[in-house]
Order: sequence, then C-alpha cells, then structure tokens
Amino acid sequence: MKNDNAREELISYISEKGFVYGPSPEIYGGVSGFFDFGPLGKLLKNNIENTIRKEFTKFQFYEIECPIVMPKAVWEASGHLSGFSDPLVSCQKCKSIFRADNLISEQSGDEVEGQDNKNLEKYFDGSKIKCPTCGEKISSKVSNHNLMLKTNVGIDTEMYNRPETATTSYLPFLNYLRFFRDKLPFGIFQIGNAYRNEISPRQHLLRGREFTQAEAQLFLFEEQKKDFEKFSEVENLKISMIKAHGKEIKISLKEALEKNLLKNKAYAWAIGITYSLFKEFGFEDSVLRFKQHEKMAFYADDAWDLEINLNSFGWTECCGVHDRTDYDLKVHSEKSGKKLVAAKENGEKGTPHIIEIAMGPNRILFSILDQCYNKKETDEGKTKLHLPKNMAPIKAAIFPLMKKEELQKVSNKIFEDLISDFVVQLDESGSIGKRYLRQDSIGTPYCITVDYDSLKDGCVTVRDRDSEKQERVKMEDLKNWLGKNI
Amino acid sequence: MKNDNAREELISYISEKGFVYGPSPEIYGGVSGFFDFGPLGKLLKNNIENTIRKEFTKFQFYEIECPIVMPKAVWEASGHLSGFSDPLVSCQKCKSIFRADNLISEQSGDEVEGQDNKNLEKYFDGSKIKCPTCGEKISSKVSNHNLMLKTNVGIDTEMYNRPETATTSYLPFLNYLRFFRDKLPFGIFQIGNAYRNEISPRQHLLRGREFTQAEAQLFLFEEQKKDFEKFSEVENLKISMIKAHGKEIKISLKEALEKNLLKNKAYAWAIGITYSLFKEFGFEDSVLRFKQHEKMAFYADDAWDLEINLNSFGWTECCGVHDRTDYDLKVHSEKSGKKLVAAKENGEKGTPHIIEIAMGPNRILFSILDQCYNKKETDEGKTKLHLPKNMAPIKAAIFPLMKKEELQKVSNKIFEDLISDFVVQLDESGSIGKRYLRQDSIGTPYCITVDYDSLKDGCVTVRDRDSEKQERVKMEDLKNWLGKNI
Repeated sequence: MKNDNAREELISYISEKGFVYGPSPEIYGGVSGFFDFGPLGKLLKNNIENTIRKEFTKFQFYEIECPIVMPKAVWEASGHLSGFSDPLVSCQKCKSIFRADNLISEQSGDEVEGQDNKNLEKYFDGSKIKCPTCGEKISSKVSNHNLMLKTNVGIDTEMYNRPETATTSYLPFLNYLRFFRDKLPFGIFQIGNAYRNEISPRQHLLRGREFTQAEAQLFLFEEQKKDFEKFSEVENLKISMIKAHGKEIKISLKEALEKNLLKNKAYAWAIGITYSLFKEFGFEDSVLRFKQHEKMAFYADDAWDLEINLNSFGWTECCGVHDRTDYDLKVHSEKSGKKLVAAKENGEKGTPHIIEIAMGPNRILFSILDQCYNKKETDEGKTKLHLPKNMAPIKAAIFPLMKKEELQKVSNKIFEDLISDFVVQLDESGSIGKRYLRQDSIGTPYCITVDYDSLKDGCVTVRDRDSEKQERVKMEDLKNWLGKNI
Repeated sequence: MKNDNAREELISYISEKGFVYGPSPEIYGGVSGFFDFGPLGKLLKNNIENTIRKEFTKFQFYEIECPIVMPKAVWEASGHLSGFSDPLVSCQKCKSIFRADNLISEQSGDEVEGQDNKNLEKYFDGSKIKCPTCGEKISSKVSNHNLMLKTNVGIDTEMYNRPETATTSYLPFLNYLRFFRDKLPFGIFQIGNAYRNEISPRQHLLRGREFTQAEAQLFLFEEQKKDFEKFSEVENLKISMIKAHGKEIKISLKEALEKNLLKNKAYAWAIGITYSLFKEFGFEDSVLRFKQHEKMAFYADDAWDLEINLNSFGWTECCGVHDRTDYDLKVHSEKSGKKLVAAKENGEKGTPHIIEIAMGPNRILFSILDQCYNKKETDEGKTKLHLPKNMAPIKAAIFPLMKKEELQKVSNKIFEDLISDFVVQLDESGSIGKRYLRQDSIGTPYCITVDYDSLKDGCVTVRDRDSEKQERVKMEDLKNWLGKNI
C-alpha cells in the first residue's frame, strides 16, 4: 500500500484519534514541517523517549541537556554555517522555489542527492526540467540555502536554533570528564529538539522542520575500540545488513566482524544495542535493516543507517550509527583554544574518538503507527490498532457497566489506584461494546469492566485487546496483573 | 545567607558536582542566560518533570506538545508582538545598554517595574542615574526592546521562538474538544522550552533566556467554576497567602473561599493542587507562600504566584496560577476566523474560560538545590546534600568492598537487577568511607556494600544517607526494599 492514498489515510487517522495534528498552527493555516502532538501522540512519544532513556541508562550512559540556541562560533567550528545547506532553484516565471536535487530526481529519475551545484545545473541547462507550479521550463542557477534558523540574542549576538543535538553535546566534554572521574570510555545522551529549514517538506513527521533527536555519544580512545568487552553481550544478534554497493545479508554481529563488514567491537556493539532498542519499540525483524552509507562524511570512519520498511513511505532511515573519529573534539579544541583531551592509562594525553547513535523519536513514532495501522483489523469500519503493549498510550480503560453511583464509585477507586503506575482512562458513556471499539481504535491493551458481581466478589472483567478473551481478576491484584502483562 | 557569596558558592558547587554548567557554551566564552544540565542536573530535572506529569495525569490532564517556533500571526494575535518588551536605555558615552526600570530601582530605590516609558524617562531627566559601566550620567530616551527571538522559515516566513508554551497550547483547542468528546471541563498540559531575550540576565537558572515551562490549562465554562466538585479534596489545605496590598495569613482553602480571598472553587482547587505539587518536590511549608498580583493583566480575573524563600535570592516566583477568563480563546477566534467554542449542557455554544497553572522546572530545580545546599552538613569540608529521596538523581550506589572479581561480579548483578527500576551507580574506587562521602555530596539516599559475607549469606549492607544507620538486606529483596523506602 505504498501509495499516496495510504499515506493520507494514515495521516488523517492519527490526527482524528488525537495522535498528531498539523501542520501547526492549524487555525492560522499551518506552516509545513511543524506539528502538534495530541494527548495520545504525546503519551506514545513519552513511551518512546523513556524506552530510549531506560536502555541507555542500562549501559551507564547519562542523559544531559544543552541549549537549543547556540552562538555563531559553535556552528562556524562545526562546519554547519558553511556546509549545512540545500541546493535551490527558482522559477523565473512564477517565482516558486524548489530543491534542485529533488526536482531533478522527480522529473529525470536520476538520483542526484549530494552532487555539487555545477552538476545539478547541467540538468537545468538542458531545459528539460519544468516548474511543477506553472509548467515553465526552469533554467536558473542553483544556489545554496543554509538550513539553520538564525536569530539574534541580546542586541546583536548572532545565534542559531541548533540543526542537531550532537554538536551541543560535545562542547561540555571537560565537564563530563570530571563527572566520570577522568575514566574512558563513557557515554552521554541527549533528547531534544533540532531544526532544519527545508524548502517545502512534505513527508509529515518524517521531515519536520522542528523535530526531536535522541543522540547518544560514546567517548573512547581509538585503541579501546578493538577489545570492547561489552560486545560479547550482543555478538549473536542476527541482523540484516547492506554494505555500501553490496547486497543484503542476514548475519550475526560476530560474523559481521570476522568478515570485516564491521571494523571493530565498539562500533559493532553500538549497532547491536541500536537493533535491540528498535526491537523494544516493537518492530519486526523483517522490516528492519542496517545500510552502510555510500558517501561517508570525510571525517567518518564508518556510518550505517537503521532503516524501517514503512507501508506509507517505503524504506526510511530512523537511526544512524556513526564513528565520528576524533574529528569533533579536535575541531572544537582548535577553534575554542581549550584542549579537549583526556589521559590514557599510560599517562599520555589524547583526543578521544566518538561513536554516535542518532535517532529521531518523531520518525519512530510515525513508524510505529504506520506498522500498526497497516495490520489493523477493519470490520465494518471498525479499526483495531495492535500497538505493542509497552508503547500503547493508554494501558487500560475502566468501565462501570452502567452509569450507577455504586459502579462509578468502585470504578473511580480502581482508577485512583492504578493511575499512579499506569496511564489509565475512565469511560462511562455508551454501551460496553462501543467502549471496547473506542479503546481498540487507539490500541488500549486492556479494558476493565466493573459490574454488579464486582460489588459482591471484588472481581472485575479484564478483556484482552488482541485475543478478546475475558478474565475475572481480583481488584486488589489489578496493579500486579497489569504490571506483569504489560 | 542571602548574599552574593552564598550565591556564588551554591552555583560553583552545583557546577562542580555535575548538576548545571554554564553559561553555555563554556568553551566559547558562554552567552548569558544559557545553561547545560549535566548528568545529575538532568536526572533531577527529569524527576521534577515526571512528578509534574504524574500529578497532572492523576487529575486527568493530558500532556500535549506544540512547536517551539510559531509564525508571526500567532504572536500578533496573542499580543506578544506589540506588548512583550522591556524598557531599555543606553549610555551616550560608552554605549552600554541597560534595562531602564532595573537601573532606576537599583539607584533610586523606587519600585518602577511596569511603569510606562514616559514615567521612567522622568528619572533620567533628573540626571541622577549613572551608567554602571563608565559612571556617565544617563539621559537617553527609553525604548522598547521586544523579548522574542525572531527567525525566518522557508525563504521569508517570519517566525518566533515562543515566549511561553501557553499560547501554543490554546491553538489546537478544537482538536482537544474532539478528543474529550465535547465535554468540559478538561485539562491539558505542556512541558517545553520558551525564550525571553532579556538584556544581561544575571540570576543563573532563575533568569534563563532559554528555559523550560510546565503549563497546565483547565478549560471550563464560567458557570462551572462555582461548583467545582474536586475542590473538596483540597479544601482543608492550610496555605500562607498574601492578598494584593495585604498581609500574610495562614488559612485553609475553604476559609479563603468563605472570606473571598479566592473567588471560586475551580480557582481555589488549582491553588490547592499547585501547593500539593510543591510539597511533593520536598519544599517545607515555611518557605512557601502564595502572593496575589498587585497589577493584574487587564483580561485576568485573578492571579496568584507561588513564591519560594531561597537562601540565595530571597522570595522567588516559581509558579503562577491565572484565571485568564475567555480572553485567549476569544482573541484567537477573532484573529483566526475559527470559532473556538463548545456546547454547554443546554446546547448553547459558549467560549470556555481557562485557568492556568504555569511553572518553571529550571527554577524548581535551582530552588531544590538551594534549599538542600543551605541545610547541608559540612564537616571538615565534607558536604552532605539531604535531597528529598524522590528527587535524588542517583537512588543508590553499589560498592564492592574491594576490587576483587567475586565481589565485582555480585555487584554487577545487583546493578543490572536494579537499573531497570532505579537510577543506580556502581562505584569501586577508593575506600568505602570515601565512596560514602562522594555519594553524600550528591544526595544519594542509599549506599549498598557487597562484602565477603554477602557471598555466604546473600545479604548486603545498606547505609542510610541521613541516619547513617546500616542494615543488612537480602539481595533478592533489594528492589522491593528500595521501592518502599524511596
């Protein structure tokens, strides 16, 4: 169903149900690439971010938070000020503006992303490319459009909304070093917003101009990569991998290392924990693969993307694992004049390398909904979302069988008891059948009905979303029961 | 200890220990009003935000997330474009720029905040105000400096980093209404960043140019305020309150309502749950008070600030409870052309009112550290932070008595077992005494030591931060034990 209809259907469903609204601000017409997360979308996003937190914390990475707005000097040093741009062309007739590479790809079928402006202009010289708005042939120059959002702080300090969290995470390196008592390797991660001023982004949450990143950074000396001990914990994971210009193979990480598909244990470990994390989100093996970059950044030692096969948009990058070498710390040492180095075991000072795991919670959110929506059961217009239980926004809904005070009282008590540990919802309007449908349509795993028997035997009926089986559970056991089943 | 030394001492302590670094980016000299949250600071901030989440969720408020960057039309409508500004003066000689009202207050002792530019200029006409930088008398005009951070999106769409989350929370009102199935009252909340381009902010986290807000919005019809049922749950709370131009009294919310200190039950309920929330953060009654605004915004029906008595900065506003009436929804209805109304029980359409609870997690974080640092025990340079257990960044530290494989193995197993539920730390370097001190200095409530007896009896020694008492606990019970004690 990889077609426009499927996309529109999915996007309208998740808006209607309260997951994602937009483009935002809707009542003022909206600006492309900006979205509101509704009540269910925000709960799902929190589940995703908390799963990321939990997993990285397990590996003793510590979360940090750096400013979104950072001064020019930072982006000069990082290279974003000169290098972070898209190639644009404009139509001479109607003045519409387009991304040159996208326009060429769409109309010529050639993949030209990453080519320089001179090469792109050759396509326009031939005058085969037409303006999608007015139909005129386009023959303008290709110019660079920097993708950062510029602002001013104080009276005239030039600053930018960050284009990535990574750079901001590197700058306090010496503070981290003190916190970790000068011992490498250590890891930190940051979850926060970043900005890319794309020209007319059109892929919903997959291409936000404002978007959330979750980026983990492992700092270690180059010589620590080879014998990275924790690798043994993930070495038997079997993963689909596509080497640059190669074919897809399913291979264990141990084998991938032996066959030089991956270069060292530390990097392979990062691939492994990333894969495990995406399994935690509920994605099936068959829709996950790692693909090596065909064009590597000049400073990168290795780079693989985790892709998910979406029903709406096909294979989509949702995470990248990058060995950034000692490039970042060296550049910021040089430009700031502060020595971002650490002592090795032999006492020598050296610049640590960085292995980065960079993912987009918004893309993950969209992907989870994409996968569940495709597998939904629709029966006479009824839709059931089989969201993974750990990702479901509402864990359980509590129904008094009827709007009677004695049933409502017990339902309220159950609500108050459960809400401290689980996001649960009270729903008393409509028939029980209608209430089941309502919860199914937003993926709630369990519905708890309080009936007149409950007043006598202290039990409630718990109905399972997937099997639709019903079970009587003692009220006092409900919290444990839910804890075990979710 | 309300003096500059105390402030500097606190700020340097929380930087050294890994709570808050800055101004950020430090290695490039830093920009006032921007900070990094280090590993401990971010854990503390997460504890604060998750406590806010939990409390509001308990009251069936749903979290949402809106964009930080919003177009001009929004800020025109909200009034921020014309009205959200500070009065500035500049020194004719050295060109330094100052906030006019602050400069006047500092040098004349008069409280002039909120006065219009004409009034402020009278102080400068007298030429008694001198430039703090060069000493020259200042006689310049007072001009308005808008506090929003302006940027451009696409090619030329004027947008701004939001000055508050509130306005962005109001815009999707019709989406919320659908989610709540057209039934009022309902509540939503948003936690996210906002920006104020202050001229030379100097109060550390209390005046960030980038800062986090947590703002809850209760939507209800005016006539629903009077008989707001949930009020009964908080009516007996006794709170210190200062009415505008009045004296501080300690009074129950029920009495406050009877004596017309507060206008209605819905608003009094908002005051009550705010107060309970700040008690959850661990603040003592004696440092908390509510103070009514002396100058109310023209559209506000009532407004009280929750203030905390800080050792470093004195009474400081950390939260505001505002009855914003139907002003916001009416303004955005008018400017957007979309009718932001809902149906009352009698079928009539009406514009809901909004009661807002607006707080700053960064201020709360700073206040928690301020309170604990003041009460720290310092013994021969040793510092112990009595952080509330639910706020402590690290809940427990695990120490193998010595660096021996058999002890490390057991310690690692305990770590892996606990880390899925609690943020715990492994620490094996230095004497046990030194490790206790290290954990005391960052407020860790419990230290768990694995010794040779542990290998025989399966028990570990748990040491309590506050009482310093030690207790033997079975390893298999540790998770439950911590759960109960934190």
